[in-house]
Amino acid sequence: MKLGIADTMFARVDMHKYVLKAIEDSGHAVNIKRYTVPGIKDLPLACSKLLKECDIAIALGMPGPEKIDKQCAHEASLGLIWAQLQTEKHIMEVFVHLDEGDEKTVSKVAKERSYKHALNAIDLIKAPENLKRSAGQGIRQGFENEGPIE
Amino acid sequence: MKLGIADTMFARVDMHKYVLKAIEDSGHAVNIKRYTVPGIKDLPLACSKLLKECDIAIALGMPGPEKIDKQCAHEASLGLIWAQLQTEKHIMEVFVHLDEGDEKTVSKVAKERSYKHALNAIDLIKAPENLKRSAGQGIRQGFENEGPIE
Amino acid sequence: MKLGIADTMFARVDMHKYVLKAIEDSGHAVNIKRYTVPGIKDLPLACSKLLKECDIAIALGMPGPEKIDKQCAHEASLGLIWAQLQTEKHIMEVFVHLDEGDEKTVSKVAKERSYKHALNAIDLIKAPENLKRSAGQGIRQGFENEGPIE
Amino acid sequence: MKLGIADTMFARVDMHKYVLKAIEDSGHAVNIKRYTVPGIKDLPLACSKLLKECDIAIALGMPGPEKIDKQCAHEASLGLIWAQLQTEKHIMEVFVHLDEGDEKTVSKVAKERSYKHALNAIDLIKAPENLKRSAGQGIRQGFENEGPIE
Amino acid sequence: MKLGIADTMFARVDMHKYVLKAIEDSGHAVNIKRYTVPGIKDLPLACSKLLKECDIAIALGMPGPEKIDKQCAHEASLGLIWAQLQTEKHIMEVFVHLDEGDEKTVSKVAKERSYKHALNAIDLIKAPENLKRSAGQGIRQGFENEGPIE
Repeated sequence: MKLGIADTMFARVDMHKYVLKAIEDSGHAVNIKRYTVPGIKDLPLACSKLLKECDIAIALGMPGPEKIDKQCAHEASLGLIWAQLQTEKHIMEVFVHLDEGDEKTVSKVAKERSYKHALNAIDLIKAPENLKRSAGQGIRQGFENEGPIE
Repeated sequence: MKLGIADTMFARVDMHKYVLKAIEDSGHAVNIKRYTVPGIKDLPLACSKLLKECDIAIALGMPGPEKIDKQCAHEASLGLIWAQLQTEKHIMEVFVHLDEGDEKTVSKVAKERSYKHALNAIDLIKAPENLKRSAGQGIRQGFENEGPIE
Repeated sequence: MKLGIADTMFARVDMHKYVLKAIEDSGHAVNIKRYTVPGIKDLPLACSKLLKECDIAIALGMPGPEKIDKQCAHEASLGLIWAQLQTEKHIMEVFVHLDEGDEKTVSKVAKERSYKHALNAIDLIKAPENLKRSAGQGIRQGFENEGPIE
Repeated sequence: MKLGIADTMFARVDMHKYVLKAIEDSGHAVNIKRYTVPGIKDLPLACSKLLKECDIAIALGMPGPEKIDKQCAHEASLGLIWAQLQTEKHIMEVFVHLDEGDEKTVSKVAKERSYKHALNAIDLIKAPENLKRSAGQGIRQGFENEGPIE
Repeated sequence: MKLGIADTMFARVDMHKYVLKAIEDSGHAVNIKRYTVPGIKDLPLACSKLLKECDIAIALGMPGPEKIDKQCAHEASLGLIWAQLQTEKHIMEVFVHLDEGDEKTVSKVAKERSYKHALNAIDLIKAPENLKRSAGQGIRQGFENEGPIE
């Protein structure tokens, strides 16, 4: 399995290291290719290029708190969906918004969201039945799971 | 007929079982393939992949109540439309928003919307004339039908 | 000439019959193919499929009054534009919003907009010079023409 | 050089005549093909079809003042960008919003914006170095140039 | 290495010269092709055409302060992402909003953002490891870097 990691210079946390940690903890043999770009709107092409040789990609981004940043995140998200449909491979979008909390919270969310989505990426390729078992269970990445209703 | 079901870990209700119930109640022979992903923005690719071998897909999602969740749902919906145009097959979008009511209501809406859209999916493939008979009748899924005007 | 009509179960007026009336009144020989889907977001694919064999399609939809309905209409409209660029054929979007007036008004608008856009569809295929004569004249469908400025 | 003009019945000013005036004033030999459609959302396909045989197209539209009209304009604009990327040819979007001023102002803006963008279209094909000379100069169409900063 | 520069007549600062300065300062041998268009919505096609022969493109734009200008910028940004996925090459979007500050500030931001993104473009082609070293460091273009958290 080969995993692509696309990340940005704009982000204020080096999320990429939590992806590496998750891979290590998973015990799976995973080859890595990393691609760093300036900002989140550069991620769709970066992922598209990674997916030429990778089985799946993770897009790590950290949108700012302003209205224009939210718009950039929206544009990047649409681009990531187009890139997936074009390449026919998954891209796990891991965006942590700089207004999700104070610096300490953002740092913690970035760590946990990156870690958990890296495990999701591995499962999507190696063990999709693991995801099935969690369907409809209110699973979150970065904050507590909400759990199922009923 | 082969039906693809794409669902998420994020959702707080296991809507997939109501799709299975609808299929059973329909009396039609329907083969099923299921694909679980982390969240709604992963559904377009999941459906696109299901449609490689399925005749139609159902995308089951449960967007959260926050503004960012609404944006994710919007992006996912656009992705589902692109995926349909790319594959030239229908995807029934079954999204239940976590702010459509209290937990009990959300649970009920999830059940009924999933069930009814599963029947719609079967009709689209097996009996499109059934849909024609309901055209312009103010049919709803999850809440009461509004009925025709005039 | 072959005209595709895509309509929905969600709509509260059977707009399709006004399209048929317009065709009859036009005196043109027009073959019809109709395709009914649950809601407006299913219209892009329905039209795309109709356009495999039709020269032009009409998409009849009736978005609800809520914010989420407006978003669905927006997504459907974008899908209809993509479907046109993909098929290289026109789709006349005939959307009547449930908040354009009271039930009586909505019913009247639905009737007139469907009727007039059906005539437009026929003109686009059979007599494009008719449209040219109306260019810049403030023509409306469903409400009074606004007329030219100056 | 062949120029496509796509315009609408919805517009309240016949902008097409100002395009013709600009061509005449330019002294260039320009062949014209015109395509009239009901409204702005029909412009992307109209331009796409014009560009089968034209070198460049001009899309003349006049969105209404309501929120829904703004949304239509947004959808049309996205469609015009897709059409350009699909055909690999330019489309000059000339949209005049009915709330840019009173009727007299709208009429004047429509005239000047159509005229100037027609000249831009000719320059893009015949004399791109003319555009280069105006880069970063705060050039406007329809209102006064803002001029360069600094 | 061949770099495409797409810029606009609408912009009020000639940002293109700061791109040239950055190239000169970089010491790299970079061939340049420039393409000027009227406004930002013309940039996606301009870049797409430049990328027929260039390795990477820079899109220089300066959206106005009004709501409609923000919408144009959004449409242009989406177009730039599509153009990248279509050409499989990067486009560095360098947009400076006319409401990012007073004229002096806008001028300074335009200069620095153009300069820094030109260096990013060169790094993406010539030295991608330079970008990797800055990943997660809160790098900004036009304003002070925010730096890493933690």
